[in-house]
Parts: sequence; C-alpha cells; structure tokens
Amino acid sequence: MILSPVQYQDDILQILDQTRLPWEERYLILKTKEDVWDAIHTLKVRGAPAIGIAAAFGLFMLAKSIRANDSDGFAKQFHELKAYLATSRPTAVNLFWAMDRMEKTLSQTLQALQTQNSTGSRSWQDLQPLVLERLGQEAETIRMEDEAACKAMGEYGLSLLKPGMGLLTHCNAGTIATARYGTSLAPIYLGHELGYNFKVFAGETRPLMQGARLTSWELNKAGIDVTLICDNMASMVMKNGWVDAVLVGCDRMAANGDGANKIGTSGLAILAKEYGIPFYMFVPTSTIDLTTKTGEDIYVECRPAEEVTTKWFENEMAPKGVNVYNPAFDVTDHRFITAIITEKGIVRPPFDRGLAGLFE
Amino acid sequence: MILSPVQYQDDILQILDQTRLPWEERYLILKTKEDVWDAIHTLKVRGAPAIGIAAAFGLFMLAKSIRANDSDGFAKQFHELKAYLATSRPTAVNLFWAMDRMEKTLSQTLQALQTQNSTGSRSWQDLQPLVLERLGQEAETIRMEDEAACKAMGEYGLSLLKPGMGLLTHCNAGTIATARYGTSLAPIYLGHELGYNFKVFAGETRPLMQGARLTSWELNKAGIDVTLICDNMASMVMKNGWVDAVLVGCDRMAANGDGANKIGTSGLAILAKEYGIPFYMFVPTSTIDLTTKTGEDIYVECRPAEEVTTKWFENEMAPKGVNVYNPAFDVTDHRFITAIITEKGIVRPPFDRGLAGLFE
Repeated sequence: MILSPVQYQDDILQILDQTRLPWEERYLILKTKEDVWDAIHTLKVRGAPAIGIAAAFGLFMLAKSIRANDSDGFAKQFHELKAYLATSRPTAVNLFWAMDRMEKTLSQTLQALQTQNSTGSRSWQDLQPLVLERLGQEAETIRMEDEAACKAMGEYGLSLLKPGMGLLTHCNAGTIATARYGTSLAPIYLGHELGYNFKVFAGETRPLMQGARLTSWELNKAGIDVTLICDNMASMVMKNGWVDAVLVGCDRMAANGDGANKIGTSGLAILAKEYGIPFYMFVPTSTIDLTTKTGEDIYVECRPAEEVTTKWFENEMAPKGVNVYNPAFDVTDHRFITAIITEKGIVRPPFDRGLAGLFE
Repeated sequence: MILSPVQYQDDILQILDQTRLPWEERYLILKTKEDVWDAIHTLKVRGAPAIGIAAAFGLFMLAKSIRANDSDGFAKQFHELKAYLATSRPTAVNLFWAMDRMEKTLSQTLQALQTQNSTGSRSWQDLQPLVLERLGQEAETIRMEDEAACKAMGEYGLSLLKPGMGLLTHCNAGTIATARYGTSLAPIYLGHELGYNFKVFAGETRPLMQGARLTSWELNKAGIDVTLICDNMASMVMKNGWVDAVLVGCDRMAANGDGANKIGTSGLAILAKEYGIPFYMFVPTSTIDLTTKTGEDIYVECRPAEEVTTKWFENEMAPKGVNVYNPAFDVTDHRFITAIITEKGIVRPPFDRGLAGLFE
C-alpha cells in the first residue's frame, strides 16, 4: 500500500499529519478554512506537490459552502478564500500555482456559462453546482497529474535500476510529499511492487531530519528494507560497496542542469562520482526553470541557528551565541549528475540541450 | 587561555567534566579510586591522551594512600588499583598504555632501590616516599610529553597555514582531548596567539555531536571565530570558497597512510580533493601502526542504533525498530590526504616511505 498524504472522498478532505511522524500515523479531517490554513502553515502537509493538492481541494471544499446570489458574489468570496489561504505559507510556490489554476478554472467556467446563459434564463442557484463540479474536477486533475508525473518518473527511474540494488536517498522526496509515489522514491515503490528487493539507505538529513522522520517511516511502513544513517556516513556506506545508485529529488533546476535540493545533496553527488556510483536527480519539469542559466543564479535561503542547535533536542547542543551557518539547500553541479529523470523522460548530458528539448 | 582538561596541583587531581559541556564548565576533584573509575567510565574525561593522563595521575594519587609494610605489599596494592581502573574503559588503548608506563616505573624503581639497599639498612617507610616521587614524575612526564607533542604538531601545522584562512574541522581533536592544545586544533590555538584571525568551521559530528558540544565550545571560549555547521553542509561551505584547509585528527593510521578517524572524515577528504582544498591529518606517532599494512586491516566498531535515533533527542527521531548503521569511524584513503602532521614533522606522499622513516 502506497500512502496518499491528501485525500478527498465523499466530501471529506483528509490529510496525514506529518508533524506527528514518526511517532503517530494520524489523519486529520479539514473542515473549515482555518483548518486548511493551519494544516499548511504548521507543515502538517508538506512537500510542494502535496501542498498544492491540499490547497486545491481545500479551495473546492470551501467553495461548496459559499452562499451567493450571483456569480460576482460567488467569485468575490472565492477570491477572499484564496487570498486567505495564500497567507498560510507565502514562500510555497506550488500553493500559489495550484490556487491560480483553481481561480482560472473558475473564471473560465463563469465566462463559458455567461455565454451559454446570455439570456439569463438560468438562475445562479442553477449554475453554482456546475461551477462547483468544474472546480472539483480541476482539483482532482491537479492531483491526478501529479500522481501520473510521479509514476512516470518512477517508471523511467526503475528502467535504470536492477533487482537487489543498494540505493541511497536524502531528505524526503517520497509519497507523502506528493499525490502518491513521490519523486526519487517512486522507482523504489514501483520496484518493490515487482519484488525488486532494493536495500535502501536513508540519510537522516540534518537539521530537520526528514530522512529519519519521514523517509525511513514511509519506506519501513511499506515493507521496504531501509537502513537509516547519519549524513556523514554516506562515504563509508559507498566505500563498503553497498550503494549502486543515489536517488534524490530537486527543488529547482537551472537550464544547464545545476539542481538545488536539500542541503547535503551536492556532497553526496561528489562522493558518488568519486566512488563511481551513478547519481540520479528526479526533477518534475515544473521544477525546471530555463530562464535561470546556472546554479549560481539560484538563491539559497539561510534558516535560523536554532534549527541546528536546539530543535528536537532535550538540551541546547552548542554553546549559547555560537555562530551557525544553516543553508536550507545546496546546488549540485550538473557535472556530478549522471541523469535527470523527469516525467517526460530521462535527460542525459549535455543537459542544456536535453532540458531545453523537454519544452519544445 | 588554553584549557587543560586534567590538572594535578598541590596534591589535587582535577578534571573538566566533559559530559556537562556545552551547558556548564564544571571541574571535578577526584579523591577516591571510585571517583577516578567513574570519571573515565562515564566519559567525564575523554580523548585518548587525556584519558591516559587522568589514569596516570589517578594511579599516582591513589598510590600515595597505600599503607604497606614492604615493597611487595605496596606493589600488590598498586597492581590492584591498576586492575580496578583498567575496568573503567576496557577499549581505551591509552588507558592501558599510560598505566603500563606507571607500573613499569614502579617495578624499575623498586628494582633500583633493592640494588641500592641490598643490606636492608633502609626501611620501607623510608623508601616509599622515593617510590612515590618517581611515580609522580612519571605521570607528569606522560602529561608533558603529550603537551610537547601537541605543541609540535601545532607548530608544524601552523607552518602550512596563513593568517585569515578559513579552516574546517570535524569531531573534537582539541585541547580538552589532550594534555593541552589538542592535535588538529593545536595550530588554530597557536595561530590565534599570534593574531592569525582564522575563521573556523566545526562540523557538528553526528551522532555524538562532539563538534557542536566540544569543539565549538572550546574554540568559542578561547575567543576564536568559530561557525557551527551540520556535517552535510561541508560541501556548500567549501563551494562558497570559505575553506582554505581541512584539519582533522586520527585514531589509527596504517603503514600506507590510510587513517581511521571519526565517522565522516573520509567524506570531507573526498570533498576537499574535489574542491582543491588541502586536507591535513594530525597524527601523533603513537597512533601510527606500521604492522597494519592498509586501512582495510583496520577494524571499525559499530555502535548502538540508539545513538542515532534517540540520544540527545526529546523524542525518538525514527520509526521504532528501523535498521540503523552506526559505524564509529571511517578510514580515509591516503590518496585524499595532502600531508600527515606528526610531532616529529610533516610527512608528504609517498606516505609509506615517510611514515616508516619516522621510526628509523
């Protein structure tokens, strides 16, 4: 069974509360706009695709409760809901992307209905269910597109792997971050269904511990052989001959194939090259930005010192006031990437040409 | 001021309690054999040289309380004390090495006195103070030799560095692990005294966090510019151009220059090579074992899963029962080491010849 972190069924929007992992597998039913806002704001739902899906279904669910006399009244309340949810995590690009799609669907639907109903023979009460139906379809399309993209990446990725291989991953680019399957974990799930018997190593991913808390949890739950390591053990695991491929996700990729991903990824790529191990980056095409020439143009956010010294710990782990450098991401140079796996296919060097080709 | 973790002055044996760092700078006075045993057993004193020094002074202090009628009675009680302290940390090679030196000093002194006193004109009560004096000298010699070795490594190391350099270190090979100065941190202290203005990066060193708890504490306390990072940030710090040299310690070195050190060291060496940064290993000659041909012959201990998943944390950081791989050390291939800094000088490749030369 491969988990879905966001589910909408029988009018009920349900999410897996990822802040409770790995201690408790708790699902929350989101009913109010405050519920949806809080779930996104407090990272109960996380992972760019999963956030977008939760926001889309959240908007749809909330739109069903709108009481309006006409399309303008409906649209006004819809925009207000969207503006409210947008404040839940202002830096989450996918949150805006998904809600913009919902808004565009609304305006296109209203326009089409207006054309069909130019005589005004049908009341708004007749039209609202049609609008809602279309919004529900769009939310489901967003979800399905992501699931299909993940599955495609999984299948392309799997074509590069063989049964029994040892695989190293970092952070969490898993099923709970997406509609289903994940990005870099997708081939692991698909291979598992085929009895491939992978042996997976998950780097714990300091400081936020997504590898320990999330990746080892979801793979363990799926019955996949997973071994947790500290990030600094990757070199030894590779030297032991236990890693046949490194599989990682990507947050943003430049036109030349330089890819930003969770801090620690670039080091793994360099180690993999040294040990002669292929390094595969799983990159949905939505993540590729051809207007960004190279990784040097990708801004890397630095996060609070407390994440390194205090978070998760019983006692502060460093002397008070010590300097801390805490970049959230690093950029892996394209020279260290063996292949880029997208939902449209596998891109091999030279990446600049291959990536541009995806969009032609 | 450069700290000494073990001090013996005016008949008082005092240690810095390293289990309280970085929260509290607490010194403990060790009075009984149980105090000494506990300090070593519970890692209040840690670092191979510091353990040896504490054990030597501990034996000396305890020997002063021996009440005996003759040399045999004294020697018997001394051996019992040694055997007792030996159980405090049975895997600590330096503990045995230092106590063996003390024991050898005792037997040599007793033998010399017996020769001088062949007529039996002097009673044991007259001789015991002479024996104790010699034991005290030996403990102080052990301490002084280590301090001199650290200082020599510091000076050789400093000859490779320039003012204003950025330096990356790992784990704690600092003053609190030795008599004084440390091994890989010795050039940093010596350079600081000369106003070199180094900018030091300390990897936190998962899972036991020696970099966060100890290295950043001791450098910060000495007024040295230190920035704490998670181990997986080393690649980014190097890519940023902030690291001019990597300085690490060594637990055991083979005849070909392969060096075992805290887990994570080998990865830093590979990154340093990729980024064109010199990688210096600080290796007291006592650590070099010419009978071990290569790093493949060095046994690496694996430690409990709980150190990765549970220790330090408020809540368990991984699902219960997940596999964990937790090697304490890794072996850095000699190909990635720029130079080996010993107390006898700097060894450059080919290391096999240079290391053998140290012992000729």
